[in-house]
Amino acid sequence: MPKPNVKEQIVAASLTLLHSKGFNATSVQDITEAAGVPKGSFYNHFTSKEELGVEVLQRYTEQAGQIGAQLGESSLPPLERLRSYFGKMVESNAASEFNAGCLLGNFSTELSNQSPAIRLQARQSFASMGAMLEEVIAQGQRDGSIANAQPARELANFTADAWQGAVLRAKAEQDRAPLDRFVDMLLNRILA
Amino acid sequence: MPKPNVKEQIVAASLTLLHSKGFNATSVQDITEAAGVPKGSFYNHFTSKEELGVEVLQRYTEQAGQIGAQLGESSLPPLERLRSYFGKMVESNAASEFNAGCLLGNFSTELSNQSPAIRLQARQSFASMGAMLEEVIAQGQRDGSIANAQPARELANFTADAWQGAVLRAKAEQDRAPLDRFVDMLLNRILA
Repeated sequence: MPKPNVKEQIVAASLTLLHSKGFNATSVQDITEAAGVPKGSFYNHFTSKEELGVEVLQRYTEQAGQIGAQLGESSLPPLERLRSYFGKMVESNAASEFNAGCLLGNFSTELSNQSPAIRLQARQSFASMGAMLEEVIAQGQRDGSIANAQPARELANFTADAWQGAVLRAKAEQDRAPLDRFVDMLLNRILA
Repeated sequence: MPKPNVKEQIVAASLTLLHSKGFNATSVQDITEAAGVPKGSFYNHFTSKEELGVEVLQRYTEQAGQIGAQLGESSLPPLERLRSYFGKMVESNAASEFNAGCLLGNFSTELSNQSPAIRLQARQSFASMGAMLEEVIAQGQRDGSIANAQPARELANFTADAWQGAVLRAKAEQDRAPLDRFVDMLLNRILA
């Protein structure tokens, strides 16, 4: 049997725990208990909870990028790719009954003021989400299916930000309505 | 000299502190030190930090409502009232160099999952912001200055949510660009 990778166990458990409970409300002991590893092992792998936070946000961004890969599937029209992508994102929020929100958004509000390292990773995560959206929106503008009064980059960044706001509101309301409203406004007003 | 109101000192100091540092990163001792009151006095006025959190969010919402009162000034056209209102909101974020964000948004992401009482207050705060926006948008739809393809309530709630997303992004970027983008998209795309 392969030796279990303690660091990986910590990151995987933290991804769930920090996403649902938040960073400051979660102790290192909470994390090692959830990971099923000795408390002392944490500092063999991370110098601080902050360093773990950066790694967890990187991992989350990679996973979001995998969902986002379908935005590049050129067999579907750009608007259909956006509809499908945000549909999956809505269902992903539904899986937590809208209680967890987006780890990127949660860390942005909770930690931007507290941790320069996490803020830097948040900026990079936003940039990669924005780039994915910009590409598909630019394609839609070229083929005429997406309005081009605003540049693709502006629309993409606004879309990424407005999504965060919708997720935040859905978390406060414990309800999907803000997410459905976002998708409706995106497809039928902003990009139409 | 009137006797200083200890409870009011605590609420006023907490409004600044919880807004800038966040709820879980701030201890009761941080609060009583910032308020300049004895630590023991806190529990004479609040049963818990959570109870204080609800009161701070109520106070914040009242203050936001005062800025929002200009949305009802019928001497200006609806779009000009919205431009002026969000212009002031952007400057209010600039005053903290975009580091503090919106207390309502911060509490929504950090505490919705942790405190039913704070989540309930957040929902009420969102409802009151949405109602202010809905009224001015509906006026603009009636006089033909605002597009009416979507109902005023839908546009108002989307606007409130997208603003939260823009503030969240501005906090992560420490930059005003997301807020300026929001105002541009609101006035020149969503409501146009």
